Amino acid sequence: MARIVMKFGGTSVADLDRIANAAARVKDEVEAGHKVIVTVSAMAGVTNQLVGYVDQTSRMYDAREYDAIVSSGEQVTSGLMALRLQEMGVPARSWLGWQIPLRTNDVHGKARIEAIETEEISGRFAEGQVAVVAGFQGISPNNRITTLGRGGTDTTAVALAAAFRADRCDIYTDVDGVYTTDPRIVAKARKIDKISFEEMLEMASQGAKVLQTRSVELAMNHGVRLQVRSSFEMSDGTLVVDEDEIVEQQIVSGIAYSRDEAKITLVQVSDKPGVAAAIFGPLTQASINVDMIVQSVSPDGERTDMTFTVSKADLERARTALEDHRDEIGYREMLSDADVVKISVIGIGMRSHAGVAQTMFSTLAEKGINIQVISTSEIKISTLVAEEYTELALRALHTAYGLDAH
Amino acid sequence: MARIVMKFGGTSVADLDRIANAAARVKDEVEAGHKVIVTVSAMAGVTNQLVGYVDQTSRMYDAREYDAIVSSGEQVTSGLMALRLQEMGVPARSWLGWQIPLRTNDVHGKARIEAIETEEISGRFAEGQVAVVAGFQGISPNNRITTLGRGGTDTTAVALAAAFRADRCDIYTDVDGVYTTDPRIVAKARKIDKISFEEMLEMASQGAKVLQTRSVELAMNHGVRLQVRSSFEMSDGTLVVDEDEIVEQQIVSGIAYSRDEAKITLVQVSDKPGVAAAIFGPLTQASINVDMIVQSVSPDGERTDMTFTVSKADLERARTALEDHRDEIGYREMLSDADVVKISVIGIGMRSHAGVAQTMFSTLAEKGINIQVISTSEIKISTLVAEEYTELALRALHTAYGLDAH
Repeated sequence: MARIVMKFGGTSVADLDRIANAAARVKDEVEAGHKVIVTVSAMAGVTNQLVGYVDQTSRMYDAREYDAIVSSGEQVTSGLMALRLQEMGVPARSWLGWQIPLRTNDVHGKARIEAIETEEISGRFAEGQVAVVAGFQGISPNNRITTLGRGGTDTTAVALAAAFRADRCDIYTDVDGVYTTDPRIVAKARKIDKISFEEMLEMASQGAKVLQTRSVELAMNHGVRLQVRSSFEMSDGTLVVDEDEIVEQQIVSGIAYSRDEAKITLVQVSDKPGVAAAIFGPLTQASINVDMIVQSVSPDGERTDMTFTVSKADLERARTALEDHRDEIGYREMLSDADVVKISVIGIGMRSHAGVAQTMFSTLAEKGINIQVISTSEIKISTLVAEEYTELALRALHTAYGLDAH
Repeated sequence: MARIVMKFGGTSVADLDRIANAAARVKDEVEAGHKVIVTVSAMAGVTNQLVGYVDQTSRMYDAREYDAIVSSGEQVTSGLMALRLQEMGVPARSWLGWQIPLRTNDVHGKARIEAIETEEISGRFAEGQVAVVAGFQGISPNNRITTLGRGGTDTTAVALAAAFRADRCDIYTDVDGVYTTDPRIVAKARKIDKISFEEMLEMASQGAKVLQTRSVELAMNHGVRLQVRSSFEMSDGTLVVDEDEIVEQQIVSGIAYSRDEAKITLVQVSDKPGVAAAIFGPLTQASINVDMIVQSVSPDGERTDMTFTVSKADLERARTALEDHRDEIGYREMLSDADVVKISVIGIGMRSHAGVAQTMFSTLAEKGINIQVISTSEIKISTLVAEEYTELALRALHTAYGLDAH
């Protein structure tokens, strides 16, 4: 008898039929003798509708009210899931963040979980009751509803699995696992049976949308065995596990891409100490994250060009912040380009194999694709290229690294 | 400087524009120097949609889950109203039932308010903050969300007014006050400037939909000055006050009607002690309320016909319960009729004026309308007639009691 956390995303609870379908999956696990905690997202589209209401009501909205409004979507699905389970003869009860309580800090809109009290729900476990937890939400020290950021129900699921020492945390979604790359673009993409936490973390943070980055990080830190699987098919999904559980490691496990990138170049910045701080200080103040950074060396050593990327949504605000600080920074011109894509090759095997980067560079060169920016980590190489090459680059790299399905 | 509770119903917060319009009314009161508590219903249609989800998910639903689901509508509007007020420069904060807390008993679906803690919100008052309370909801002793029954936000408003000792409780709605009768049927209906609690209570319980019956009862018991007024027009509404505040009392203040009636007749019941208990016991067990009752005396004194009314929604269940107990009751035949309407003439002046009932009977007789059942209270006469006469009866009675506008 295992303890299992089952998470159903927005497309898996998009309407009453799908909620019934998800409930049937829960019933299967209960009948197999397992203790089950379910956590659910809002019905697909509901969160966007609520966010739309907020955006139309207030330009600079109060994040406490945003959270109170937006968290209501999960409240509805958790109640409906509990009802549906009851209707199927499975004892169930819904739990909102404040009822558990699932305590977070007070950073509304992207709160971090600080503690989950397990006493109440554990008591119900003993009575054979399934707990249906509203995802994405918690309660702040000030007794206000908080939300965990978009995709936060993944984090709820992993945090519950850690708190309740679950044997498995199954993430049910509309795909049947993690793929070597996006199968909508690369027909030969393969489902990965097992992937390490580190690789999954890079895949998620480099654009693969199947899991929220923070949830993978949390699973890694607490050793929660994650499984990504389909709500609609009965097949096995992808297991996300410790590196040492993977017997035969791939050099490259997957290729991620992110279109949510925009490039900014400051031309002829003076090449002196403190200039990086002058540039990135105003961006930090405006809560804009900078991702890739490259500084090109000038021939005379006195002036340099600085190129970096921000998310597309932040581009206009970043430009404004940099214009406002033009005098302190001292650049000749600001260029920007939102038509770029970041393509990342990810694999633990890179640590011990040379030539992985070279394969990427030569493959892209062969296809005539110019690399604009490069960044690397221990298990990842990312390149920024023009967005129009997305499909071409992904297919070529997928073949070059031997990932194509037979 | 007064303390005011302002309640906005579903049509008054039906979309973002209407929420903005309602917020402007709140701002007016704040700028006039008043301390304001706002309470809101769900956007028109939302509660019905959520109830529909529940009905489709579970045949015999768990009322605790029903409440968790259905209360989310008010959560959204309270947040949006707070945001809109902030956007207009009015400090505001939303409050859910569990945050106040507004404590109720555990009768889910139609809970009764037991206590409202005022400390937190009073503290914010001192800082000039408007409290926006989600209507219709509270928290049970078991830490579960409860709801107060349909139209429950009226009750929330009055209970808040009582707890905070508000000088006024304004119920904003889509009509500009309480009318002598339904103006959609009787063109000459007049808006009533002042009406007593007792009359309003009869109006509401006899079918006038402008205020929930329980909220009037609560206002009466706590001496809360109610005002029913329009969200869309700036005119004064109807004040609901103590009887002694009304200088010139009308003999008849208004005429209410309810189409939600069905008549059942049990033919040839034996006229012996205990038969009423045998009939109404099974209905009580099935939670079916019986309203009007008339027992016709048989010539021989041995058998009698028993006629009574239930709400239309309960008719089939009532018939089933009575058929199941046919042997104990011992009737020859059961007849029923759902095409009936209850018309009620209401007025405090009735207490001291004779002939009010006679006017009703003769007016209906003149129009050839047969009275099927009669029931009276100190300030009300109700008659059950065939539904097709509704409009004719209302117009004739409105004229007969001198209520027509000039």
